[in-house]
Amino acid sequence: MSQTRVLAPTPSAYPFPLLIKQLLLSGRRYESGREIVYRDRVRYDYNQLNERICRLANALKASGIGPGDVVAVMEWDSHRYLEAMFAIPMIGAIIHTINVRLSPDQIIYTVNHAEDKLILVNDEFLPLLKGMHDQFTTVENYLLISDNDDAQVPSDLPFVGEYEALLAAQPAECEFPDFDENSVATTFYTTGTTGNPKGVYFTHRQLVLHTLVETAVMGGLGSTPLMNSDDVYMPVTPMFHVHAWGVPYVATMMGIKQVYPGRYEPDLLVDLQQREGVTYSHCVPAIIQMIMGCKRAQEVNFSGWKVLIGGSALNKGLALAALEKGIKLSAAYGMSETCPLLSAAYVTEVMRDQLSDEEQMDYRIAAGVPVPLVQLEVVDGDGKFQPHDGETVGEVVVRAPWLTQAYFKEPEKSEELWANGWLHTGDVATIDELGIVRIRDRIKDVIKTGGEWISSLELEGLMSLHPAIAEVAVVGVPDPQWDERPFALVVVKPGEDVDAASIKKHLKQYVDEGRINKWAIPTQIAVVESIPKTSVGKLNKKQIRADYADSLNGGGAFLSSV
Amino acid sequence: MSQTRVLAPTPSAYPFPLLIKQLLLSGRRYESGREIVYRDRVRYDYNQLNERICRLANALKASGIGPGDVVAVMEWDSHRYLEAMFAIPMIGAIIHTINVRLSPDQIIYTVNHAEDKLILVNDEFLPLLKGMHDQFTTVENYLLISDNDDAQVPSDLPFVGEYEALLAAQPAECEFPDFDENSVATTFYTTGTTGNPKGVYFTHRQLVLHTLVETAVMGGLGSTPLMNSDDVYMPVTPMFHVHAWGVPYVATMMGIKQVYPGRYEPDLLVDLQQREGVTYSHCVPAIIQMIMGCKRAQEVNFSGWKVLIGGSALNKGLALAALEKGIKLSAAYGMSETCPLLSAAYVTEVMRDQLSDEEQMDYRIAAGVPVPLVQLEVVDGDGKFQPHDGETVGEVVVRAPWLTQAYFKEPEKSEELWANGWLHTGDVATIDELGIVRIRDRIKDVIKTGGEWISSLELEGLMSLHPAIAEVAVVGVPDPQWDERPFALVVVKPGEDVDAASIKKHLKQYVDEGRINKWAIPTQIAVVESIPKTSVGKLNKKQIRADYADSLNGGGAFLSSV
Repeated sequence: MSQTRVLAPTPSAYPFPLLIKQLLLSGRRYESGREIVYRDRVRYDYNQLNERICRLANALKASGIGPGDVVAVMEWDSHRYLEAMFAIPMIGAIIHTINVRLSPDQIIYTVNHAEDKLILVNDEFLPLLKGMHDQFTTVENYLLISDNDDAQVPSDLPFVGEYEALLAAQPAECEFPDFDENSVATTFYTTGTTGNPKGVYFTHRQLVLHTLVETAVMGGLGSTPLMNSDDVYMPVTPMFHVHAWGVPYVATMMGIKQVYPGRYEPDLLVDLQQREGVTYSHCVPAIIQMIMGCKRAQEVNFSGWKVLIGGSALNKGLALAALEKGIKLSAAYGMSETCPLLSAAYVTEVMRDQLSDEEQMDYRIAAGVPVPLVQLEVVDGDGKFQPHDGETVGEVVVRAPWLTQAYFKEPEKSEELWANGWLHTGDVATIDELGIVRIRDRIKDVIKTGGEWISSLELEGLMSLHPAIAEVAVVGVPDPQWDERPFALVVVKPGEDVDAASIKKHLKQYVDEGRINKWAIPTQIAVVESIPKTSVGKLNKKQIRADYADSLNGGGAFLSSV
Repeated sequence: MSQTRVLAPTPSAYPFPLLIKQLLLSGRRYESGREIVYRDRVRYDYNQLNERICRLANALKASGIGPGDVVAVMEWDSHRYLEAMFAIPMIGAIIHTINVRLSPDQIIYTVNHAEDKLILVNDEFLPLLKGMHDQFTTVENYLLISDNDDAQVPSDLPFVGEYEALLAAQPAECEFPDFDENSVATTFYTTGTTGNPKGVYFTHRQLVLHTLVETAVMGGLGSTPLMNSDDVYMPVTPMFHVHAWGVPYVATMMGIKQVYPGRYEPDLLVDLQQREGVTYSHCVPAIIQMIMGCKRAQEVNFSGWKVLIGGSALNKGLALAALEKGIKLSAAYGMSETCPLLSAAYVTEVMRDQLSDEEQMDYRIAAGVPVPLVQLEVVDGDGKFQPHDGETVGEVVVRAPWLTQAYFKEPEKSEELWANGWLHTGDVATIDELGIVRIRDRIKDVIKTGGEWISSLELEGLMSLHPAIAEVAVVGVPDPQWDERPFALVVVKPGEDVDAASIKKHLKQYVDEGRINKWAIPTQIAVVESIPKTSVGKLNKKQIRADYADSLNGGGAFLSSV
């Protein structure tokens, strides 16, 4: 008896494609009165969100945009960005979320590489844009976004009009067509530390599945539910960066109040969090650190604010400092290539019963447990699966329904990414007996010394527990005898002081406990004002190596040579 | 620029099918130590669940079962049923969950119609099976299930062996292959009140999507989260009935402790609920009524038990009575054809702030808000969408990714089911301004009187609020003057008494309030010991009409002729 003959119809006999438009359906049904807030400027409800998305879709179509066209957005986090994240893919076009923190040359590269046809641009970027316009090869038009009610559309560039005026001129209804769920919906570029930015892209099907699983993980599956339907959401990861980790899609599907902060100014973020009652956010460690350190933060009570941390390792020192201020941090793991969610911290019921809050923190800062539908393993250099023993390190490889299928127009890099049918993350991790993933390092940041591998991340985590250290970065520097030795940059907390002996003594305890070997104590430690970061707030180790490697006795106030 | 050329790959370039095996991955990852419990007989953890599913899959393959084969199960709710719900579809076969409450003729019909090849059968059904064996046209073998450790495989029927012995003989590892996500995974038969049972079926893709959305709805999306990862789950809807509403798949994906009660004996259900700390169940109203009325229930405290109600309308009287016993009921809506989840009660934040518990109950007993990815409308006889005004009734039609694509081998009935590309539920409902769906009746149960439509369900709901009434059913009976008039059967609460005047007076208040018109007061009311139910516990109105329509002054102790 053949399966096909008896019960299985062809997919075409039952056309219900998974499309982003479906995510928009339910938020309004649940809580149509809840608000979308943009700074102190705009405030409207889910009915209006739906109407404005229709108007934007109509305006885009009137501007000549159709299925398959790439529409780019250069904008800070706003209600308009949210509208674009729905309207553009819902008409079958592709949204390219431009990383506005890239250099002009890199932005030109990504715009031309993605073959953008129209760019929605905030007037703050107009000076930048004017310098780039002549070098764009595929852009036909611009669409002006502005916080200024009297914004004038520049006459020296091909603009189709201003956002609010275009929306006002369009009907608030439109029919969104069904089409193939494997159509690409979004694209953006990863900011690698070498070479050109690489384009990743995600289909409607992938984004719908990612949204459903992210909702499940944040709601019912989390041992500490992160976001449920009564939470108030404010992203503090830019919307151009992996669609703000996909959370705006989750929040919209759930009908949650959403607060968009524009450009990230720490005092304003604190004000918005307080005034709008924000209870759920997500960001990289550097941003929460910046927020906690700002002036306004010293005057307020953050209790009830849950912040998902990703992008870089969350260290225990930061998590404990946040907890003292009432902010509950919890880690998750993913990357641009993975849409991004792969795993999230999970604390089992037994641990919650038996461990202190501080002991539980070791689990809350871990990359955690792979989420449903994700297969995650660590492999050695030969691609062999490594044991789940909490000790054996290997590169993290994954399979999941929402991974980028390739780097756009980069067949060689794509083949490397997808070697043996698994996506290679470039991260080094262990998986323990409980299945908990702990990221140890980027493959290229691991420090090889005396025949051992030292995780720069682990070392940073342990150093962060020193009471006087606010921030720390560790890189490997060449050493004639040991191959490489660790070199650390530290930022000291305001009002604190630190000396080499104190840091060495601090690290010595972990050597005694057997957590690190003695080679892990940095050869040299520099106290600096700030540590170089990438455009998305990660430690820029390439920059650190460039700044310090050639003149190890140059750059900062060196503390010691051990 | 063509979408396909630039970014969209073909699906085959990115093969990540949605398969039931993926649902099994994460439960063990989250909480491998949590238990699967079967009555007081079996208790094991998620690691063993995974191993046993592998062993069962290996045993099925060794028994000649391959992709596309239909494997039926005749069993009460058990850990073995759960194992079969995974193992059978995971090897590409189709599980047919036989409704053991059907008549022997109907069971024979469904087994032959589904073309079952192998039947897993609990020894309790052996006498029944022996009488049916000769009439099966496609069954090749049986596999014995027993609670008896020394169960002997009957020699007079073709048995491949006994469940535990077969599992013990197989390895605990196996590789489950990838295949087309549109392969059928499950099938079963609906128990319509006319004609032969009709076969519905669901694919791997459909079940995975249903599981993800059901998880989201039960966790983060519910205004009162119904099931999160620390809950303890016990189905009280048979697993043969729409896979126990899909909740075993949700529970397994979440890594929740699961308790399977075998055959439903009220005292045992109460004992299990108490002993195992069950906090989440689901059932039809008749079952929770039965449980609350049993002897053991009078001695215990149910507080903390959340019960999702579906299958029939949940009336306010029952919901309030349950609340008094500490049981929190909340309605959801769906049917066999819809996998089943379509909508679930939702109480908005404003309502929770402003309404009393009793006022909120009006929302908790409603079919509620369509869940994500579901499109739901009400249409008139011409298929025209009706307004969302809370008053205009129409037939509920739906679109969703998890609806049966047809009635198996019933082209005409399938065409009727899917008229105009929407699945026709046969239910009559209103949708109000808030988008809340309220089921008013089955189309065929609506009472047409004096040019008006009276909802038999609404009338039952109002009558259930009478303090002396335990159960009630209303049907329309022919009336020469008014076309039809309502006729009611009531079961009186133990120790209570009721008279016609009291019921009439009770209903009169709703006439005065304008909630029903005066034609809705039943012509005749009969007090009976019990009300006929279908095999899944719904009011059997066809039976009631047959029993009473011909001799309206015959069957019960009639109270009145108004």
